[in-house]
Amino acid sequence: MIKAGIIGATGYAGGELVRLLTQHKEVEIKWYGSRSYIDKKYASVYGNMFEIVEDTCLDDNMEELAKQVDVIFTATPQGFCASVMNDEILDQVKIVDLSADYRIKDVSVYEKWYGIEHKSPQYIEEAVYGLCEINREDVKKARLVANPGCYTTCSILTAYPLVKEGLIDTATLIVDAKSGTSGAGRGAKLPNLYCEVNENIKAYGVASHRHTPEIEEQLGYAAGKEIMINFTPHLVPMNRGILVTEYATLTRKPDGSLPTYEEIKAVYDKYYKDEKFVRVLEKDVLPETKWVEGSNYVDVNFKIDERTGRIIMMGALDNVVKGAAGQAVQNMNLMFGLKESEGLELVPMFP
Amino acid sequence: MIKAGIIGATGYAGGELVRLLTQHKEVEIKWYGSRSYIDKKYASVYGNMFEIVEDTCLDDNMEELAKQVDVIFTATPQGFCASVMNDEILDQVKIVDLSADYRIKDVSVYEKWYGIEHKSPQYIEEAVYGLCEINREDVKKARLVANPGCYTTCSILTAYPLVKEGLIDTATLIVDAKSGTSGAGRGAKLPNLYCEVNENIKAYGVASHRHTPEIEEQLGYAAGKEIMINFTPHLVPMNRGILVTEYATLTRKPDGSLPTYEEIKAVYDKYYKDEKFVRVLEKDVLPETKWVEGSNYVDVNFKIDERTGRIIMMGALDNVVKGAAGQAVQNMNLMFGLKESEGLELVPMFP
Amino acid sequence: MIKAGIIGATGYAGGELVRLLTQHKEVEIKWYGSRSYIDKKYASVYGNMFEIVEDTCLDDNMEELAKQVDVIFTATPQGFCASVMNDEILDQVKIVDLSADYRIKDVSVYEKWYGIEHKSPQYIEEAVYGLCEINREDVKKARLVANPGCYTTCSILTAYPLVKEGLIDTATLIVDAKSGTSGAGRGAKLPNLYCEVNENIKAYGVASHRHTPEIEEQLGYAAGKEIMINFTPHLVPMNRGILVTEYATLTRKPDGSLPTYEEIKAVYDKYYKDEKFVRVLEKDVLPETKWVEGSNYVDVNFKIDERTGRIIMMGALDNVVKGAAGQAVQNMNLMFGLKESEGLELVPMFP
Amino acid sequence: MIKAGIIGATGYAGGELVRLLTQHKEVEIKWYGSRSYIDKKYASVYGNMFEIVEDTCLDDNMEELAKQVDVIFTATPQGFCASVMNDEILDQVKIVDLSADYRIKDVSVYEKWYGIEHKSPQYIEEAVYGLCEINREDVKKARLVANPGCYTTCSILTAYPLVKEGLIDTATLIVDAKSGTSGAGRGAKLPNLYCEVNENIKAYGVASHRHTPEIEEQLGYAAGKEIMINFTPHLVPMNRGILVTEYATLTRKPDGSLPTYEEIKAVYDKYYKDEKFVRVLEKDVLPETKWVEGSNYVDVNFKIDERTGRIIMMGALDNVVKGAAGQAVQNMNLMFGLKESEGLELVPMFP
Repeated sequence: MIKAGIIGATGYAGGELVRLLTQHKEVEIKWYGSRSYIDKKYASVYGNMFEIVEDTCLDDNMEELAKQVDVIFTATPQGFCASVMNDEILDQVKIVDLSADYRIKDVSVYEKWYGIEHKSPQYIEEAVYGLCEINREDVKKARLVANPGCYTTCSILTAYPLVKEGLIDTATLIVDAKSGTSGAGRGAKLPNLYCEVNENIKAYGVASHRHTPEIEEQLGYAAGKEIMINFTPHLVPMNRGILVTEYATLTRKPDGSLPTYEEIKAVYDKYYKDEKFVRVLEKDVLPETKWVEGSNYVDVNFKIDERTGRIIMMGALDNVVKGAAGQAVQNMNLMFGLKESEGLELVPMFP
Repeated sequence: MIKAGIIGATGYAGGELVRLLTQHKEVEIKWYGSRSYIDKKYASVYGNMFEIVEDTCLDDNMEELAKQVDVIFTATPQGFCASVMNDEILDQVKIVDLSADYRIKDVSVYEKWYGIEHKSPQYIEEAVYGLCEINREDVKKARLVANPGCYTTCSILTAYPLVKEGLIDTATLIVDAKSGTSGAGRGAKLPNLYCEVNENIKAYGVASHRHTPEIEEQLGYAAGKEIMINFTPHLVPMNRGILVTEYATLTRKPDGSLPTYEEIKAVYDKYYKDEKFVRVLEKDVLPETKWVEGSNYVDVNFKIDERTGRIIMMGALDNVVKGAAGQAVQNMNLMFGLKESEGLELVPMFP
Repeated sequence: MIKAGIIGATGYAGGELVRLLTQHKEVEIKWYGSRSYIDKKYASVYGNMFEIVEDTCLDDNMEELAKQVDVIFTATPQGFCASVMNDEILDQVKIVDLSADYRIKDVSVYEKWYGIEHKSPQYIEEAVYGLCEINREDVKKARLVANPGCYTTCSILTAYPLVKEGLIDTATLIVDAKSGTSGAGRGAKLPNLYCEVNENIKAYGVASHRHTPEIEEQLGYAAGKEIMINFTPHLVPMNRGILVTEYATLTRKPDGSLPTYEEIKAVYDKYYKDEKFVRVLEKDVLPETKWVEGSNYVDVNFKIDERTGRIIMMGALDNVVKGAAGQAVQNMNLMFGLKESEGLELVPMFP
Repeated sequence: MIKAGIIGATGYAGGELVRLLTQHKEVEIKWYGSRSYIDKKYASVYGNMFEIVEDTCLDDNMEELAKQVDVIFTATPQGFCASVMNDEILDQVKIVDLSADYRIKDVSVYEKWYGIEHKSPQYIEEAVYGLCEINREDVKKARLVANPGCYTTCSILTAYPLVKEGLIDTATLIVDAKSGTSGAGRGAKLPNLYCEVNENIKAYGVASHRHTPEIEEQLGYAAGKEIMINFTPHLVPMNRGILVTEYATLTRKPDGSLPTYEEIKAVYDKYYKDEKFVRVLEKDVLPETKWVEGSNYVDVNFKIDERTGRIIMMGALDNVVKGAAGQAVQNMNLMFGLKESEGLELVPMFP
């Protein structure tokens, strides 16, 4: 059995890690770290865990934890993981960091968008960006994985094959994203109150959201050049789920014609037909967040607009699963040589 | 592997059976019956099942189905199962009927409350009322199980220990129940439209809901006498979940005093401490439907009101799981000698 | 024009007062009191008021305010209004207090249920309980009105005619109430976060909610004797609306028969047929909170259960309007000799 | 008093017309047309109208209706209004058509996108496109007004000033729209059931939605040239509200620099500062649908992305009010020489 520790076990992503790992055959959780609830029973924080988890919350002592477990998940605010990381920890234990600390390779970009100083930039290079479908082989060898952001995972996987194959003009790429409210975390803040979110939709972080450079960097690798996009997140009155709607101008063929549906479909299939967790939907079936709820799937599809020459790509995932905890477990499975889908073969729940 | 067939596989309860059985190690579904969607791919009806279920919907031919499978689940409108049942079927296959057809022992009560003629009353006596926590041993030997209603399961299990032990005056029992909208089924009816349900709560079926006689019959067995209750269901703007709030006057001790918290708690524990799927919550923790969502749990607790001499009992379950498909699988497990919780060890999902 | 001041203008009840008074022909708001937002534009706190309200929030200085306005609404936490009240204020200005400070005549009951010391018990007797339909004449003469609680208004008006006429056994009265989340206020507390409330229902304050003694006191006056009830509130995932479902044993006639539908209906009509804001629904039409949303109406109806001899009474209102701000304006209209429905003839909004 | 008739009074837009006209001082509704509910009391269809509307639903006999009223609102399926229109009707009565029948000037475009034959193309030219803020003077003189679509109103008003002034490259314009579920109408269809919409978001009508040519035509007039856009609607789990997020590349100045915030703001103010129902929000305040709920406001704002050279424009309105019934009343007010905001000074409701 792999022994796991979670720092930040009482946030929504941490709670989902507990849900997933509790049902994972090869893992036992040895440490429920939560600075806010030290010494309180975990099940008193998350009533769903009553009679399932008997443990009590512990402090977020990474050094001590590193001695006791095989893998640590850090589901913590930006900056925490970077501030406590050191060689001793990395020598003892594998790390899956759900924060943004090691996602962006250019530390100046990180520091600019996050507005904080990075405390351990020396580990950024070694950290593997844990988007399993793209970086699978690197993840297998990693001791430090930067688990991608929720918007990022959805935005990248939806466009990746077309960017990689040069089928769209990346200078025209626009990502309009919609997220359920769990993405805002469990902090008691006025804008996240029920009555403020319910019966409401709004954009936020327009032209300034921190997932922007992460998307740009990763899609830039695929494109083989720097790219800049517009990314606009919206808050939707639902608990879980992210839907992205992406717009880009298609690269025309030498004769000026657009690629056909079948040609685009073939490209998606080339990258995803063997990917268990990416489902390319059938023609004219559009992704819905409800169809992936509670599961590790990303559903993608696209529509070509002959009139404007653009393609509209759509992707849906559960932000707490494939957008956070599920992907973290998928990374862990790879790092420990387990079956990649172990503990993640959850059938989406409907309704 | 147990071969299973589902009649009514495209309703919400049928869909949940598919979700549960797909994740059940000992079962394979051989027949997705759905009169409305014959020859359509099951995954085109329920997008969550894309790349998980490849089958196509079939007709509801029970006789043919009985030859092909070991167990049939009928998630069909009232009257259907009774209308097709015969000895030949029962000789070949085990039946778990999710409709009300065999739940009520007195056929005249059934015909009065449901307003239809019962077409095979000869099987009512043999049918076992499949509330596993109460009729476990009978279920094991049954070939025909009447799977309890959603409201009924919640209402009965919440009050059962106190009724059984004579701790409440059953003549005072009132059940005020609140249900998510999936309980209303997937029929395209105006009152179930999003805009009619959302931001709204109402009572319905007041003093006339069909689950009333079912609760009365089963609690009557526990009490050892006929009982009559008030049962009022309400429609709540959420997908899943039933909460019942039950009121009854406590039986006072010879000295006129009320039973204490500890005494009542001991009675709940007597019946439920070894029941995996019934969780008696800790003192002052009140059941919330969200804490059982997606799982087979029923959470119960109570509060004594010293002022009025009443006890307020509360219970919560997921109407689609423990209130329908989960309980059906639990019954199947018992009927086939499997571990009772096989395929049902789903951790509730939060948020 | 009546000059009005609001203390607590940035809570949900305060915000609704602003919405109503802004549309009231005879009133102008001169003071938007909000300790949390002093010097901030009111419309920056409530975006709906942009270009409608240009004022800036002020402190909660009652003494100063009393000199500037004709009426003060206090939509403040329990204890505030009592702590600042004095003769000078009451000599200058009329007060509608939306808190509980002057609702309960027996100060020891108040102090026990609210757990705070009452700082100005000398004004309790003079304060008029502002349930306009019952205390209309007293309200007209009052200078200090205790505006009833949201649950209380709904619970009392639903049962009042039958209690007053002795048609139910008040010892059997049980009130099961369901409320939207705005009733929990705008404080940034974890249990009120979107993801905690959404897709969830729970009871709270079981056998201990503070509106219990208020209901008991007022219905006790109607009954002409002390009464004790069970009152159980529930939190429902919607913004606005309260539904109460009340159970009581009907008083049988000398011949042992139950009153008929027509007899009960006649009693409701006796009290409410001239009441603009109480709508006794037609037979078999059950109240829904959505049908009163945004308006000052209370919809009530009932169902007799011949089997159990009980009556099930139901009532619905908008907790922010008739349950708070609307009733406060109704009281103000009475106190100033205006048409009682002035500014309150809002048609409920659907959907 | 203006006598009004409504055809299609029991749809959501029709219901909202009733709500608005009931509160309009200069109008009385004489005809509640609803083919589905003929001879049923209107208040039995919409419980909110109990004791407010006493009338009974009538047939949709336009010829008869034209004799009895001064203005007819047709809130009917596409094709109906065109199929019954004739000179006699237009000579007797003013028409505000809430369907799309007279919105698109090029009948071939209408017939292509709507897939039906237009039965009275001879009236298309005379019909005035009733976007009051743009066509005010023409509306005043019209006898037939084509009331704009909900998505259209929001999409056009959000971009109009910049298109008109040539500040954006219209070839790059993309409109990503999100709508509450009332926009889907009150028909009993499976995709609009509560459990299908709740906790879900999806795109629909991608590259094919019928409001596309309407937006293109109107913005084309502003641009002085034909334009083609991408328009993608999404279904959001809420009752009311549309939010549009629009992307376009800004026209750079001769020196290659982008227009400043102040310059763009000045253009919005030029067109909207005297418009009561269009609110240009303060810098960095982003539109939220909740802030306009129940009112006739459109809230707009924008953000310049210096990195990509694009502007992100946002607009929010209540689809049932400014997107349908409210705009229809605004048009009626203009047509009859009333104050434009008569009956529409409704303060948005929060929460």
